[in-house]
Amino acid sequence: MDIEHWSVLILVNLCNLLASLNDDVDIGYAAVDSICDYYTNLQNGTIPVKAKVQPGYLIDQLPTSAPENGQDFNEIQKDFNKLILPGITHWQSPSFFAYFPSNSTFECMIADILSSSVANPGFNWICSPACTELEQVVVEWTAKLLGLDKMFWGSSGIGGGVIMGSASDSAFTAGIAAREKALRYLSVENGVKPSDYGEIEIPESIRNEYSQKLVIYGSTQTHSLAAKTAVMLGLPFRAVPVSIEDNYSLTGQNLKEIIDKDISNGLIPFLIYATVGTTSTGAIDKIEEIGNLIKKKYPKTFLHVDAAWAGVAYALPNYRKNLKLNEVNEFANSFCTNFHKWGLTTFDCSIFCIKDRKDLTKALDVTPSYLRSKESDQGIVIDYRNWQPALGRRFRSIKLWFVLRSFGIKGFQEHLLRGIDHCQQLEKIIKESSNFEIVTPPSLTLIVFRLNPISSKEDIQLDDDELNLMNQDLFKALDLRCDIFLTQTMLHSKERNMYVIRIAMGGVHTKFSDVEEAWRIVEEEGQKILVKWKAQRAIE
Amino acid sequence: MDIEHWSVLILVNLCNLLASLNDDVDIGYAAVDSICDYYTNLQNGTIPVKAKVQPGYLIDQLPTSAPENGQDFNEIQKDFNKLILPGITHWQSPSFFAYFPSNSTFECMIADILSSSVANPGFNWICSPACTELEQVVVEWTAKLLGLDKMFWGSSGIGGGVIMGSASDSAFTAGIAAREKALRYLSVENGVKPSDYGEIEIPESIRNEYSQKLVIYGSTQTHSLAAKTAVMLGLPFRAVPVSIEDNYSLTGQNLKEIIDKDISNGLIPFLIYATVGTTSTGAIDKIEEIGNLIKKKYPKTFLHVDAAWAGVAYALPNYRKNLKLNEVNEFANSFCTNFHKWGLTTFDCSIFCIKDRKDLTKALDVTPSYLRSKESDQGIVIDYRNWQPALGRRFRSIKLWFVLRSFGIKGFQEHLLRGIDHCQQLEKIIKESSNFEIVTPPSLTLIVFRLNPISSKEDIQLDDDELNLMNQDLFKALDLRCDIFLTQTMLHSKERNMYVIRIAMGGVHTKFSDVEEAWRIVEEEGQKILVKWKAQRAIE
Repeated sequence: MDIEHWSVLILVNLCNLLASLNDDVDIGYAAVDSICDYYTNLQNGTIPVKAKVQPGYLIDQLPTSAPENGQDFNEIQKDFNKLILPGITHWQSPSFFAYFPSNSTFECMIADILSSSVANPGFNWICSPACTELEQVVVEWTAKLLGLDKMFWGSSGIGGGVIMGSASDSAFTAGIAAREKALRYLSVENGVKPSDYGEIEIPESIRNEYSQKLVIYGSTQTHSLAAKTAVMLGLPFRAVPVSIEDNYSLTGQNLKEIIDKDISNGLIPFLIYATVGTTSTGAIDKIEEIGNLIKKKYPKTFLHVDAAWAGVAYALPNYRKNLKLNEVNEFANSFCTNFHKWGLTTFDCSIFCIKDRKDLTKALDVTPSYLRSKESDQGIVIDYRNWQPALGRRFRSIKLWFVLRSFGIKGFQEHLLRGIDHCQQLEKIIKESSNFEIVTPPSLTLIVFRLNPISSKEDIQLDDDELNLMNQDLFKALDLRCDIFLTQTMLHSKERNMYVIRIAMGGVHTKFSDVEEAWRIVEEEGQKILVKWKAQRAIE
Repeated sequence: MDIEHWSVLILVNLCNLLASLNDDVDIGYAAVDSICDYYTNLQNGTIPVKAKVQPGYLIDQLPTSAPENGQDFNEIQKDFNKLILPGITHWQSPSFFAYFPSNSTFECMIADILSSSVANPGFNWICSPACTELEQVVVEWTAKLLGLDKMFWGSSGIGGGVIMGSASDSAFTAGIAAREKALRYLSVENGVKPSDYGEIEIPESIRNEYSQKLVIYGSTQTHSLAAKTAVMLGLPFRAVPVSIEDNYSLTGQNLKEIIDKDISNGLIPFLIYATVGTTSTGAIDKIEEIGNLIKKKYPKTFLHVDAAWAGVAYALPNYRKNLKLNEVNEFANSFCTNFHKWGLTTFDCSIFCIKDRKDLTKALDVTPSYLRSKESDQGIVIDYRNWQPALGRRFRSIKLWFVLRSFGIKGFQEHLLRGIDHCQQLEKIIKESSNFEIVTPPSLTLIVFRLNPISSKEDIQLDDDELNLMNQDLFKALDLRCDIFLTQTMLHSKERNMYVIRIAMGGVHTKFSDVEEAWRIVEEEGQKILVKWKAQRAIE
């Protein structure tokens, strides 16, 4: 399937879908105007990627309280175009290269309206059997699509997966499961015997003695979800330093040094967040080294692999080795990837898979009488509320079902390969540029670069402090423009700290010409910064 | 506005909206077929409220992996009708009386498709200024609609509100804020001085010494979200007993007894969940008593009021006194109500308001460089990621905006009053029934009853054990039927334990004739149980 053709088809279908047959009721037209004009304008560049608004723009335009009387729906829809769209940062723009993509597709728009039409809070199987079972099915489809080990499959009866709202939710849920698992482990070590049902109940005394000794680990490159989980659990997070020579990966050796220091202080490692595809540079942690350490030295420790962005690329068999799929399958207790980033599924759709579902249910099952049902009491169905922090949940699986069926595995793979191809083409261009350098090996669709006039005629080596200032100036200049949207980041490593700029491809509507145009703007702004900088140097 | 007329209008509009102009592209028709047929069939009773499916019905019908090639979208849509709808529990059915309603409206279906069309993860203001600002505006609209004190309003610059996914998320977030606040309090008590910026940093030593001494309180009637929050925070939850004479409310005296026992054991109360409208019976805790206790005796304690279901009724000025609005305004640190229950807004839309927003941001702000933006750095915008556990968030405010504008305050109030009227009419009917008793005073739209042949000619007083068994039999019989859906609950109190049945009204499509029909079924099944029971007694 031709993905670019598909994009156009999406637009046409959506317009047809929403067009109203009846001239008297023009609500349909308003929706068509809104969405079709919007996508057309995004495609032809009439709407720049970033909103031009200033803080407070909308607050100043809206009444300070709800209207007394109901208003005509037409008027409300018009206000969507007039007031809301101008304040949207256009993640669906072909020129969106900030953060990571948050792709939305036609299938998901339809899925969302169908989901609303049968709205329910989905906490129990009986809340809507279809919601629970479709989730079981499509999450298993994704586990197979990605090549996850059978232990992660729901059909194993032991592991399984669930759709969460975000990778933060997945990481936090892993954290709760990990803490309870470690405390059960400590209970056994302290002589607690299993109940008649074979369960270990954690005594209050064990909880009091050990809870505050538990420590979470990741690297300085781990997403803020780790530090935030630590805050929520009320436990410390160690951001282990990384090296440029390891391409910003968390290594077993670096981790071991920090853990052993903690252990010698009486602390207990219970949770490690390893990342496949870090946010800043797309780094892949040394999962085999970490996994072997856990196996040999820290058996109470739970390994959660956060592949929020990169994980969908496991759908490409040729990429599995580089992305360490075998290591994830061997060592991870749980795994997360977001289909709502690169994976064509409208936010929110974070896939969280775990090898032992009881790690979740033992920690999260709190069932009062009004939530009981005969099917649950018999243990023949899954109640997803016991797999997640909250009770209620949206019917998210329908989005993923529509996407996976419409695109098929091949269409999904073609979409991924297109983003990777864009990245490889851009890599060549940047490598030929005399003003820019790529600071880490490009990762799938992510390039991290900085302005560094290395081959300028002056032949002067600038140090990181100077380059950081120069690149901050460049980012500021780019950030003032509305026709480009990139993200900055500070790369901390043992060797040095570099202020760099990220360009993340993989948008569903992005053509390579959009990437080229973005790079043209970066070159243009870079050139201006260099002219200024040279003038400054001449004065000095 | 006539709400019943509105329901029909919704259906007509939706059909028109989705109908396709172009015969070649019949995707629109498929969506129309699906949603219009669905709502028509719900209204005329062709589709009973409960799904007739058995566990595994859908898993057995779907392929075990995603298709290799993309499929025709028409086929996928058809499968929604063929496979998904039969497995839906119809929360939008006029005969849905289980749990609490989860109303969905036309406005929200449109809002969801618009939200998908501009999909973004919404974590920063710059992620989409419109998303952040619309949320600020409509949450303030709700705060005013409900009569919440100005301290809860975002425009106060001190407090403010945010839309969460569920009341569980709100309660958990309150829990994190409360714990950090208590630890800051304890830090000050232990001599920690504010930083140059006036901030109290909690030393590791304080965290280690006090974290495991913190205790959460609610009643035996508090929603399971409290026990689950306790699990997630790794802290104990005390379910304080309640009395029938207090109508299942948590009282200051009962609470004080448990807290004082904990304090004498060296523990520290830091969080109380009070409820306005408990799930089981709609009880309202004695917020003034609890609040005064906190004020006078437990100043480290944070009071979160969970009004998940009943809170929207504050939109009715005449009901505010009974629902203790003044007490909430005076004593609560934070407050939650779900517009996605009775409040016409499709799941998910939980409003969480707090009097001091810094309680949230001090606990939840973890900002790495790649999430920084110039607007945030200047402190002139809200970044809602610092008000919630997860990073990413959906554009939920658009649903609420559409609902509040379409219905207006008056239409919203009329919808609420209609549900209350149904409840009052049903109350009369049950009171006249010789076989049933109402076990607690009806609350807004909730009636809790049990089969109890009090005025049967045998004139025999049955004890609770016998009645519990009899009502379990009744619930089992009702639960086997697909044309009625109620929920059971066990009412624990100091005096006795009663197995009872709940009927929760307030559905947006429910007419009083639907309530009457549900009650007819209850009477019919109750009669059968009584006949069986009398036959059984005759044998004995």
